[in-house]
Amino acid sequence: MSDAILIEFLPQGGVVTPQGFVAGAARGGIKTQGDDVILIVSEQPATAAAVFTHNAVKAAPVWVSAEHAAHQTTRAIIANAGNANCCTGERGLANARQMCELAAMKLGCSAQEVLVCSTGIIGHQLPIEKVTIAVEAIELQGEAETNEKVARASMTTDTRPKFCAARMVIDGKSVSVGGQVKGVGMIGPDMAALQTPQALHATLLAFLTTDAEVEKTLLQQALERGVQKSFNSVTVDGDTSTNDTAFLLANDASGVSITEANFEAFCQLVEAVCIPLAKMVAADGEGATKLVTIEVKGAATAEDAKRIAMTIANSPLVKTAIFGRDPNWGRLAMAAGRSGVVFNPQQMSIYLDDIEVFRNGEPTDFAVAEAEATMSREELTVRIQLGAGQANWTAWTCDFSYDYVKINAEYHT
Amino acid sequence: MSDAILIEFLPQGGVVTPQGFVAGAARGGIKTQGDDVILIVSEQPATAAAVFTHNAVKAAPVWVSAEHAAHQTTRAIIANAGNANCCTGERGLANARQMCELAAMKLGCSAQEVLVCSTGIIGHQLPIEKVTIAVEAIELQGEAETNEKVARASMTTDTRPKFCAARMVIDGKSVSVGGQVKGVGMIGPDMAALQTPQALHATLLAFLTTDAEVEKTLLQQALERGVQKSFNSVTVDGDTSTNDTAFLLANDASGVSITEANFEAFCQLVEAVCIPLAKMVAADGEGATKLVTIEVKGAATAEDAKRIAMTIANSPLVKTAIFGRDPNWGRLAMAAGRSGVVFNPQQMSIYLDDIEVFRNGEPTDFAVAEAEATMSREELTVRIQLGAGQANWTAWTCDFSYDYVKINAEYHT
Repeated sequence: MSDAILIEFLPQGGVVTPQGFVAGAARGGIKTQGDDVILIVSEQPATAAAVFTHNAVKAAPVWVSAEHAAHQTTRAIIANAGNANCCTGERGLANARQMCELAAMKLGCSAQEVLVCSTGIIGHQLPIEKVTIAVEAIELQGEAETNEKVARASMTTDTRPKFCAARMVIDGKSVSVGGQVKGVGMIGPDMAALQTPQALHATLLAFLTTDAEVEKTLLQQALERGVQKSFNSVTVDGDTSTNDTAFLLANDASGVSITEANFEAFCQLVEAVCIPLAKMVAADGEGATKLVTIEVKGAATAEDAKRIAMTIANSPLVKTAIFGRDPNWGRLAMAAGRSGVVFNPQQMSIYLDDIEVFRNGEPTDFAVAEAEATMSREELTVRIQLGAGQANWTAWTCDFSYDYVKINAEYHT
Repeated sequence: MSDAILIEFLPQGGVVTPQGFVAGAARGGIKTQGDDVILIVSEQPATAAAVFTHNAVKAAPVWVSAEHAAHQTTRAIIANAGNANCCTGERGLANARQMCELAAMKLGCSAQEVLVCSTGIIGHQLPIEKVTIAVEAIELQGEAETNEKVARASMTTDTRPKFCAARMVIDGKSVSVGGQVKGVGMIGPDMAALQTPQALHATLLAFLTTDAEVEKTLLQQALERGVQKSFNSVTVDGDTSTNDTAFLLANDASGVSITEANFEAFCQLVEAVCIPLAKMVAADGEGATKLVTIEVKGAATAEDAKRIAMTIANSPLVKTAIFGRDPNWGRLAMAAGRSGVVFNPQQMSIYLDDIEVFRNGEPTDFAVAEAEATMSREELTVRIQLGAGQANWTAWTCDFSYDYVKINAEYHT
């Protein structure tokens, strides 16, 4: 982040922090407890950008949202937790459309102005009557408490709601981006614009709002850049979901127009919300005891750096060693090596926080007790210096614990 | 396997089943208990084929064996368990060469006629004096018990030795292939001929012997074909080791020459040993309670089929569901979809053993109790029918249990 740009981070902010947005949640009874249907609404027609999972098996709401995101104006996002509406055929598609209709009727807009998301179990038909009940019950509000309420309603196996906002001054006026994310398992997002919807489970859902005015193409670019550096760089189990979706709505309530001239600043504002949200996902990963940051530096290309970072972040042997608080750097070297990136291990160095454990192809004489102490903290940074170039990438993951197995072996269909 | 070819499987067979091979093992004290150094010897100069890990970080013995495998004749394989001799720099390389020297001195051959492998912990110098003690103590034998003894000595976290052989008649004479494999963790092999050794931890080690006469190029082809369908199609954690190696020695003691005419038969004999060994690896995978066979059928290409099979085989969500005996086919659909292969889910069907749980994009009305009973057996076959073409692939994996986490969080450096 450039020093010249002053961004104020708002840890209690969220989707209704930007001006002109209201939201609400209610319980339809899809999850076993709590609110499970949410609505996020722009009071005025907004511009929308969207990215979706690359999984060849896509949930019904992904298809419907891809279609509706192409509409020139967008008013709302409707989402449910507890059922992914995935692998549900034609009836699933009809139910996803019906969710948009329900929101449109409540708001007095067209169904095409509504984006839709689902998360939960795959392969069960969505109980649309429960969604109907919840939509009727939702009260739209713009209070500070709304941010948490709406973020909480989107949770499935998440242990805590994840939301934040950031604010900066552009052209003399205050502009905000607010966001929330859900997802702690089936997390290995790989989202991009859905050019050609091919077919139709959801886990990482990120909803972002801004009161800037941003033309649709530019908004899409800002979202894609932000997602690539944040949600697409976080993993829990590497299992890319069938429902991953991120939306960014821009409603112009601030009166600030984003143009080529202030686009960089706006992108940094989006990242200032997306990156903390991505780290919250890793920290709350199923069974996680630790947030792990993987920094790969000195790669020949950013693609190489990302590939190595994500291979380390997904390695079961690395993640179990970190759970065991074992400074087993050999597994880090193994994982970097199996990434498919060609590099020279004789030029590679490995750090656990600030402790250099491996230098230019050979072990250092590091103090094991000190390294074990480092491994025992709540956060760990693993740094790989490749010595192959100037490109860097940062990814986030968590350790792999008994509880990950428990949560996923016992989450029965 | 063609019906016309009669292959006799020898479950108690191993590396000394083919004529003209002897072997032995002894304890040097590298592992905490048991024999840890092995020698497999052809009484006459043999031809060797070799494949090595694709990991960019390669152990010292990989470099040395790649060099020695190019030699026209080979007499022996020396291997140790308990230390991978990986990330050990120049000294590691010298120690790998010294292992070959020790075998060469014992056998009266040149060091270039000796192939070398190591498996165990990464990043610790090999205690070469312990290898020296063991090599002196090894008694070379060709008895039936030798097969198990030598296979046992190569074990690290393996719970049982893995060995077998197969025999067939070619040109009126009996020809055998014998083999052994070790490895139950850091298993996601990706082995191929090492064209250009680039730099220098070992886990899957497969040693194969045959008493056929096979010219070096043809022998390499037979090994690569066999490995691709077996060891390169088995996974425990997807973590491709730094030391994965497979060797095939051919010594002509049977007097049968393999030519273009009988090459297919010979390849089937090699596969008849490699595939059972690969299944033994998956069945003995760290913490495994179940052997899982993944059959992908009807793909557009074999590469597509393999990619889907291996993505399912490595999915933490699939593997934990199988451990939980949960017929959660949604996770199978998710994993197939995230493989990167483009296919139409509306044409995909999914089977758990013979139970069709998903047909052409929608759930079937299968009996959950019956599916749970299927999931409770010691072996499970998952079959994905893609409806996209004629290509098939089979892979093997195991479930993901509390014990996997325990073994790998507590295996301290």
